Amino acid sequence: MSDQWLTSLFTDDPQTGYELAIKLSRMGVKYTQPSDDVRKKLRPIYEQDADSLIASSQVIATNFQTVAQANNFWQKQ
Amino acid sequence: MSDQWLTSLFTDDPQTGYELAIKLSRMGVKYTQPSDDVRKKLRPIYEQDADSLIASSQVIATNFQTVAQANNFWQKQ
Amino acid sequence: MSDQWLTSLFTDDPQTGYELAIKLSRMGVKYTQPSDDVRKKLRPIYEQDADSLIASSQVIATNFQTVAQANNFWQKQ
Amino acid sequence: MSDQWLTSLFTDDPQTGYELAIKLSRMGVKYTQPSDDVRKKLRPIYEQDADSLIASSQVIATNFQTVAQANNFWQKQ
Amino acid sequence: MSDQWLTSLFTDDPQTGYELAIKLSRMGVKYTQPSDDVRKKLRPIYEQDADSLIASSQVIATNFQTVAQANNFWQKQ
Amino acid sequence: MSDQWLTSLFTDDPQTGYELAIKLSRMGVKYTQPSDDVRKKLRPIYEQDADSLIASSQVIATNFQTVAQANNFWQKQ
Repeated sequence: MSDQWLTSLFTDDPQTGYELAIKLSRMGVKYTQPSDDVRKKLRPIYEQDADSLIASSQVIATNFQTVAQANNFWQKQ
Repeated sequence: MSDQWLTSLFTDDPQTGYELAIKLSRMGVKYTQPSDDVRKKLRPIYEQDADSLIASSQVIATNFQTVAQANNFWQKQ
Repeated sequence: MSDQWLTSLFTDDPQTGYELAIKLSRMGVKYTQPSDDVRKKLRPIYEQDADSLIASSQVIATNFQTVAQANNFWQKQ
Repeated sequence: MSDQWLTSLFTDDPQTGYELAIKLSRMGVKYTQPSDDVRKKLRPIYEQDADSLIASSQVIATNFQTVAQANNFWQKQ
Repeated sequence: MSDQWLTSLFTDDPQTGYELAIKLSRMGVKYTQPSDDVRKKLRPIYEQDADSLIASSQVIATNFQTVAQANNFWQKQ
Repeated sequence: MSDQWLTSLFTDDPQTGYELAIKLSRMGVKYTQPSDDVRKKLRPIYEQDADSLIASSQVIATNFQTVAQANNFWQKQ
């Protein structure tokens, strides 16, 4: 995968950080299965499976923790 | 998803923080499956499945750790 | 869920902290499935399933990490 | 569960810390399924199931991280 | 496994760090199943399985957190 | 398990640290299933199962995070 998709973990606010966490989670899938066609075929399956959705949310939660730490939880403390 | 739903990780107390962790966990599902209809159809399934409930609690636990860190565990130490 | 169930992450000692972690883990289930009746029906199933018990212990482990950090691991270091 | 089983997270060395992590992991199961009889019946099942063993090692890994942090990774740094 | 494949956790930027996290995740599989032939046979299976792809992304997320911490999240804070 | 197998979390470099993480992951399995015979019987099963391999890599990732923290990520920062 040669193109640039991640230049920084810093975001303006928590929500943009959450959305970056989603991107990180999807890229983990994309690097493992690079074919757009195959991933498109799989989408309707896991999108209708409660356990797959919960597992997706788990990956996002782990990545969000990293992004939040990088941003010092968007200050205060 | 254009609307604003997460402006800060700071909450007044641990319980509100826990409830924010629940919101974060649900948003992970919602971003992956944006259709309210589909999610509503899936709810009665996973809500009656012990393993799905435990997996949900796992996602919440991960997000709660992030929220608790952001709030410096609501002080002391 | 309107009542107050979590006012602080601080506990007197590690064991009470572990028990708080268990409470946090159970509340994750309860928020997702608020019906006492349904949860009571599910209990005999997952309580006799080794994998569900291990998964429960995983959720507790994650929450215990949070509680232990909050309490500065009950000092020393 | 009224008896005292966890008074401190501090151990003399990493191996004793790892063994404490195992104890923490087992107590998560025990609190969820307090019956010695049921747990004894389940043991031969998950002990012969590779995925259950890997999942057990995952719980231990999470608890070991907590114990290692508590002990400042047994110094140096 | 005698050859050198990991000399440092430091990378120039987050994307290279993410790719190191992928390498770490794959090496975990390779150490457990060293045969190239067997791994090649398994690839078409898990690459077409949504849950395996999500689980892969979870491993990458955990390793990425480690790499990001090592790199101080590529500065700022 | 009476013999000494873990005296320190410190290693000379990241790769040796990764290999220590593998050892920690395997010991989690060994403590849960101490019989060499049973573990030997299970090996050909999970070694040919993609999901078991991914789950093994997940345990290693968690332990590697602990080892990397112990070694201050092998310096810099």
